[in-house]
Amino acid sequence: MFEFDLLAQTSSTRARAGVFHTLHGDLLTPVFAPVGTAATVKALTPAQLRELGATLVLSNTYHLYLRPGDELIRDLGGLHSFMGWDGPILTDSGGFQVFSLSDTRKIDDDGVTFKSHIDGSTHRFTPEKSIAIQENLGADILMAFDECPPPLDHDYNREALDRTHAWAARCLAAKTRSDQALFGIVQGGVFPDLREASARYLTGLGFPGYAIGGLAVGETKDQMHAMLEVVNDILPADKPRYLMGVGSPEDLVHGVRRGVDIFDCVLPTRLARNGAALTRTGRMNMKNAPYARDPRPVEEGCMCYCCANFTRAYVRHLVVSDEILGAVLLTQHNVHLLLTLMREMRAAILDGTFEGYAENFLLNYNSRQLSTASNL
Amino acid sequence: MFEFDLLAQTSSTRARAGVFHTLHGDLLTPVFAPVGTAATVKALTPAQLRELGATLVLSNTYHLYLRPGDELIRDLGGLHSFMGWDGPILTDSGGFQVFSLSDTRKIDDDGVTFKSHIDGSTHRFTPEKSIAIQENLGADILMAFDECPPPLDHDYNREALDRTHAWAARCLAAKTRSDQALFGIVQGGVFPDLREASARYLTGLGFPGYAIGGLAVGETKDQMHAMLEVVNDILPADKPRYLMGVGSPEDLVHGVRRGVDIFDCVLPTRLARNGAALTRTGRMNMKNAPYARDPRPVEEGCMCYCCANFTRAYVRHLVVSDEILGAVLLTQHNVHLLLTLMREMRAAILDGTFEGYAENFLLNYNSRQLSTASNL
Repeated sequence: MFEFDLLAQTSSTRARAGVFHTLHGDLLTPVFAPVGTAATVKALTPAQLRELGATLVLSNTYHLYLRPGDELIRDLGGLHSFMGWDGPILTDSGGFQVFSLSDTRKIDDDGVTFKSHIDGSTHRFTPEKSIAIQENLGADILMAFDECPPPLDHDYNREALDRTHAWAARCLAAKTRSDQALFGIVQGGVFPDLREASARYLTGLGFPGYAIGGLAVGETKDQMHAMLEVVNDILPADKPRYLMGVGSPEDLVHGVRRGVDIFDCVLPTRLARNGAALTRTGRMNMKNAPYARDPRPVEEGCMCYCCANFTRAYVRHLVVSDEILGAVLLTQHNVHLLLTLMREMRAAILDGTFEGYAENFLLNYNSRQLSTASNL
Repeated sequence: MFEFDLLAQTSSTRARAGVFHTLHGDLLTPVFAPVGTAATVKALTPAQLRELGATLVLSNTYHLYLRPGDELIRDLGGLHSFMGWDGPILTDSGGFQVFSLSDTRKIDDDGVTFKSHIDGSTHRFTPEKSIAIQENLGADILMAFDECPPPLDHDYNREALDRTHAWAARCLAAKTRSDQALFGIVQGGVFPDLREASARYLTGLGFPGYAIGGLAVGETKDQMHAMLEVVNDILPADKPRYLMGVGSPEDLVHGVRRGVDIFDCVLPTRLARNGAALTRTGRMNMKNAPYARDPRPVEEGCMCYCCANFTRAYVRHLVVSDEILGAVLLTQHNVHLLLTLMREMRAAILDGTFEGYAENFLLNYNSRQLSTASNL
C-alpha cells in the first residue's frame, strides 16, 4: 500500500510519470486534484467528476471540522461514503486555512488557537488534533499540520520551520490508521537554504510522500520554480511530490517539468463560478459582449460536455443571467482542460516527447492573462 | 403532425392517456414539463434532464425576449439548439409574466405596454408580437397571448375574456410556421359561466390543443377542481389539455383525474433551490436539524441519483453550506418524483387501475404540507 512506482523519468527535465497506489484506486501521476472544500467539488456531481476523468479529490480539514464536523462524517462512514466519491481523497491539515481564513489566531509551539470564520467560536488545532480529524474524515492521503508564513520573510520562515518540523514528527507519531498515507510538508518560503533544510529534515523522517507548501502565495514565478528545483533534487525519487494549491495550466506544465507529481487548486472551479473559462491559450471572461452571438464552443477542439453541446453565446447568456448551469458547464470545461493537460503530459513523459510538448504548450500560452490561484 | 392519439379514457374519472406527436418527439401524456425559464431548467444539464426521463420542457417567452433576445436565439438556430434540448419545447405567450412580473403595465385592446423587470426599459406585446417572438424561439408548442386577471373578480374576468378571445383569433391569424402547434388558453377565473364560454369559443376557433390558464393563482383547490371539470367537459376529447403552472404532487393527481394531459410548474426546481424536497407524503425542509445525522436517503425507496447515492445528512450539509450541489441534487430528486408520478399515473390509466392509484396516493399524501406554486 502507498507504494509509488516510478514508470518514467525524463532525461532533459525533472518530469516523471508514475503510479501511486491507494486503497481507493491507483493515481496515475502526474495528476491534478479538483478541490472539494466542503466535501463537494463545487457545482459538480461525483458522476460528472468521474466522467471528466478525475481520480483524486481534495477536501479541506478546516472546513469539514467546522461544518458538518469530522465526527459526524466518521459516524456516517467517512468522507468517501459521505460525499459519494469512491476514488482517492486527499485532505490537507487545516494549517493553511487556520493561517489564511480564521480570525485572531494565536500560535504557540504546541499548536494554534483560532476563531471560526463561520460563527466566531474558538477552536484549537495541534498536530495531534489535525491527525485525529483527518483520521475521522478517512481520506487516503493526509497532510502533516504545518505553519504557513508569508513567503518573503526569512526570519519568520526560519522560526516557523522549526515548528513545522517538530509538528511533522508529532503528526507521524499521532497517526494510528494504516490505510492512510501521511505526507510531510516542505516549507521555507523563497529561501533555498530553508527549503533545502526542510526537504532534508522531512526526508529523514521517512514519509510515503512529500508536499511542497507555501508557494503560489505571493512570490514570483521564478522564485516558485527555483524552490521546486531545490526541493525536488533532495526529495527521494521513489516517493510522490505534491505541490499544494497550484493549478493554472502554465503552472501545471512548469511544475511537472520540475518533478512534481500531484497538484490541487481551486482555480478551475472558482474561475468557473466567476464566469471565466480556462483555455490552452489563456483565459476568457464569458461575460464579454463579443461572445453574445458567438456560435463557437467555449474552446474550439475541446471535447468536454460544455464545448460539445453549447455555444459561447449560450454560456454567456447563462453567466449573464446568473444561472447555475453556467457555473456547472464552465466548471466541467475548466476541470476537463486541466485533467486533459495532465493526461497529455503523462503520455508525453511515457513516450519521450515531454520536452517538446511543454515548450510548445508554453509558447502558445499567453502567460500575461494568467496568474496563480492566490491572485484571483 | 400535432395529432393527439387518445389511447385510454378511464370510465369513473376524466383521466386519460394519449400521445401527442411533435417534430421533436412524441409526448406520452399525461406529462409534466419542468420549467426552463431562461433556456435552462435551473441547476440541471440537458443530459441530466434526459436521464430523469423528461420529455417536454417549458421556456418563458417574456424572459427570453428580454434576455438574450428572441432574434439572437433565432440566429443561433432556435431554442432547441441554443439550450441543447432536442426534445419537445413549449413556450408560453409572455402574457402571464407581463401581468405578474413587469412594472407599470398598460393594457388596451390591442396589447400591453410594460417595463422590463431587468432594466426598466419599455416594451409592448401584442398577439402578433408574441407569436413573432415564439416563432423566433422555435418551440414545438406555442401559447396564444392572453390576459390573466385576478381569479375572483367577475367583472374584470368578463371584460378580459373578450380581449383574450380576440387575441386568440389574432394569434391564429398571425402564425406562419407549420412546425409549431399553437394552443388557445381558456380563461374565466373561478366562474363556471365564463370558463364555459371560453372553452366553447376557443374550441370553435379550432386549436390543436388547449391550455387552461388563470388557475393556481389564489383560488381554492375546490374552485380549481370545479373549473377543470367545467372546461374539460367542453374541450374536444381528441385534443390535448394543458393546465398551466400547476405541479404539486397532489395537484398533478387531481388534474389528471379531471382530464388534464400536460402540466408545468416551477415548484420542483424552485423548492430544490430553497433546500426543500418533495416526497410522496409531503415536503421536507432539508435544513432541519434532525436530518444532520440521518443516514437515510432523502426519500426512502426513491431511485433518483440523489437518493441512490447520498444521505439526508449530506444533502442537509450541502444546503446549510449553500453549495450548488445541494440545489442540483434536490432538483434532480424533485423533478424525478413528479416525472415518476406522471409515468405511474399513465401506466395506471392504461391498465385500468388509475382510480385506486389516485385514491391511495391522496390518502397517503399530507395535503396540509402542500400548496400550489403560487404560495411559495
